[in-house]
Amino acid sequence: MNETRAIPNHLDILAAAARIAPHAQVTPVLRSSSLDALAGAQLQFKCENFQRAGAFKFRGACNAVWSLSEDEAARGVVTHSSGNHGAALALAAKTRGIPAHVVLPEGAVKAKVAAIETAGATLHFCAPTMAAREGLCAKLQAELGLRLVHPYLDPLVMAGQGTAALELLQQTGGLDVVLAPVGGGGLIAGTAIAVAAFSPATRVLAAEPEGAADAHESLRRGERVTDIVANTIADGLRATIGAANLAVMQAHAVDVLLVNDDETRAAMRLLWERLKILIEPSCATVLAAVLRYPQHFSGRRVGLILTGGNVDLDTRWW
Amino acid sequence: MNETRAIPNHLDILAAAARIAPHAQVTPVLRSSSLDALAGAQLQFKCENFQRAGAFKFRGACNAVWSLSEDEAARGVVTHSSGNHGAALALAAKTRGIPAHVVLPEGAVKAKVAAIETAGATLHFCAPTMAAREGLCAKLQAELGLRLVHPYLDPLVMAGQGTAALELLQQTGGLDVVLAPVGGGGLIAGTAIAVAAFSPATRVLAAEPEGAADAHESLRRGERVTDIVANTIADGLRATIGAANLAVMQAHAVDVLLVNDDETRAAMRLLWERLKILIEPSCATVLAAVLRYPQHFSGRRVGLILTGGNVDLDTRWW
Repeated sequence: MNETRAIPNHLDILAAAARIAPHAQVTPVLRSSSLDALAGAQLQFKCENFQRAGAFKFRGACNAVWSLSEDEAARGVVTHSSGNHGAALALAAKTRGIPAHVVLPEGAVKAKVAAIETAGATLHFCAPTMAAREGLCAKLQAELGLRLVHPYLDPLVMAGQGTAALELLQQTGGLDVVLAPVGGGGLIAGTAIAVAAFSPATRVLAAEPEGAADAHESLRRGERVTDIVANTIADGLRATIGAANLAVMQAHAVDVLLVNDDETRAAMRLLWERLKILIEPSCATVLAAVLRYPQHFSGRRVGLILTGGNVDLDTRWW
Repeated sequence: MNETRAIPNHLDILAAAARIAPHAQVTPVLRSSSLDALAGAQLQFKCENFQRAGAFKFRGACNAVWSLSEDEAARGVVTHSSGNHGAALALAAKTRGIPAHVVLPEGAVKAKVAAIETAGATLHFCAPTMAAREGLCAKLQAELGLRLVHPYLDPLVMAGQGTAALELLQQTGGLDVVLAPVGGGGLIAGTAIAVAAFSPATRVLAAEPEGAADAHESLRRGERVTDIVANTIADGLRATIGAANLAVMQAHAVDVLLVNDDETRAAMRLLWERLKILIEPSCATVLAAVLRYPQHFSGRRVGLILTGGNVDLDTRWW
C-alpha cells in the first residue's frame, strides 16, 4: 500500500491478512447458550485473548513489521507504549528477527515491562509524560533510523487490526452487528473498513467507557475532543481517539455505546464464568454494551471482539 | 455394551464417542510456547473447561443418559453429587428430555446448587454424610424406578470420560505421555483404556494431590485405601478411588505423581496467565506434576487433560 495514505482500505486489510497469516493465530470464536439467553441475542465472541502476546495488537504490529523494506527492517522499529502494543511490536519484530525499541514511562507496570523485555525489545525509560515519550521516540527515530509504528494512527496497524473482523465474518457466516471497543481507534477503524467492504449489511458499533468517552464526545460535537482525562478500569481504552480513526468512524457512521465501570466489571465476570476464558476489562465493555442497550441487539446475530487477556491476576476485580 | 460388566473396553469408548457426538463439544487443544519452554517439553492441553457444563463430566453423564432404554429413560436418572457430575447429569438428562434427580448435602455451595437446578434437575437435600446421601439415593431409585448414574463407578461413565483422551489423540497426532488427574478415577480409567488401545506406545500417568493421596497409597499397598481424609484445594479430587477404577490403573500400570497445593496453585496461575483460560485447581495438578517431575516429561510430547473450569471467582487463589 501507499504508506503516505492515512487511512487503509479493504484491500489493505486483505493484504494484511495474507501478510500476517504465517505468524498470527486464527483465534477461535466462542459461544455460550447461557449468555445468549441473558442477552436475548446470538452472541459470537472473537477471542483475541488467544492471539500471540495476548491481544489483537499483534495483528497490526505484525502487519507493520512485515511491510517494511529490507533496509527499513534492518534498522528496526520503535514505539512508545507500556501496554499491549509494546509487547506486540516486540514480538512481531522477533518474528522477523529485527530490532525493536520501546519507550516506556518510568514506573510502568513491572509485568508489562517484563513481557516487552522477554520478547527481546530494547527498553528506553523516560519521564511519565506524553511529551517526554514522544520526544525520546523521535530522538531514537532520528538517531537510529528507526521506523515508528504508532499504536493506532499507523495505517498498516489499522489494516492489521481489521483482520480480526475479517476472520470473524469468515468464521461466523453472517452477522447483523459487529461490536468492538474503542480507545485510540485502531481496532474500530479496521473493523469498520472491513465490515463495510465484506459485509455491508452488517452494522458496526463501538463500546467505550463513560470514564474515557472521548470518541463518543468527539462524534457528538463533530470535532476531536482531546481534553478528557481518562478514569476507567478499562486500561486498554484510556488513549484519546486518533484523528484518522475518528474520521473512519464518521465515514462509516459508527455509533458509540457508553458503559460504566460497574457494568464492565460485571460483564467481565460473566465472560470469565460462562466462557471459561481470561479477558481483560477493556473487552468486557462490549458485553456490557449488549446488556445495557438491548434495543440494538435483541434477536440479532452479534459478533463481539474480545480484544485481549492481559489482566492482572493480583487485582481483586469484584 | 453389557451393563453388568464393571469395566468398559475400547469399543465401549468408541461407542460412547459416537453416542455423545451430537451433544458434547469437541474441545480445543491449546498450546503455549512459554509453557513449553518452562517445562522443556511439548505440552498439549485438552481443554475440557470448554465442555458443556464446564467439565469433562458431561461426557460420562451424557453417555449414560443416551444408553438408557426408552423405559428407563422415561423414569429418569439419579445421582448424589454436589459437584460437576451433578450439573453434568442434569444437563445430559435435559438433552434427552428426561427427569434427573440429584441428592445434595444440606449446606452445599449455592453456586453449584444453582447450576444443577438451572439445568432442570429435581433437588433432594439430606444430611451431609455419605450414608445419608447413599440412603436417600437408594430410596429414590427404589420408589421412582430411577437409574443410578454413579460419578465414577458406572462403566458407561468411565467409557464416556475415555472419549476425552480419544479426541486428544486424534487432535494431536502422536503423544509420548498422557497425564490426567485422579480423584474417584472415572477419568483416569477411561483415559488408560483409550490410550492402551488407540496409542499403545503412549504412557499414561496420573496427578494426585498430596492431601488426597488415596490412589497413590492404594497402588503402593496393592489394596484400596479408604481411610484418607482429603485436605486439598483441588476440590474435584477429594473422592476416594473406586475399586473398579483402581483395578484399571493396576491393569494398565498407571503411576501416580503427587503434587502439593502450593505447586497446584502456582500451576493454576500459570495456566490462567499463559493460556488465558479459566481452569479449576483440580486440573492444575497435571501441570504441577510436569514441572515437579521433569524426568518423566523432558523432551517429550505430553497431552494434559484440563478437566474443568468451574472455579469460584470470589476465592483469592494467590
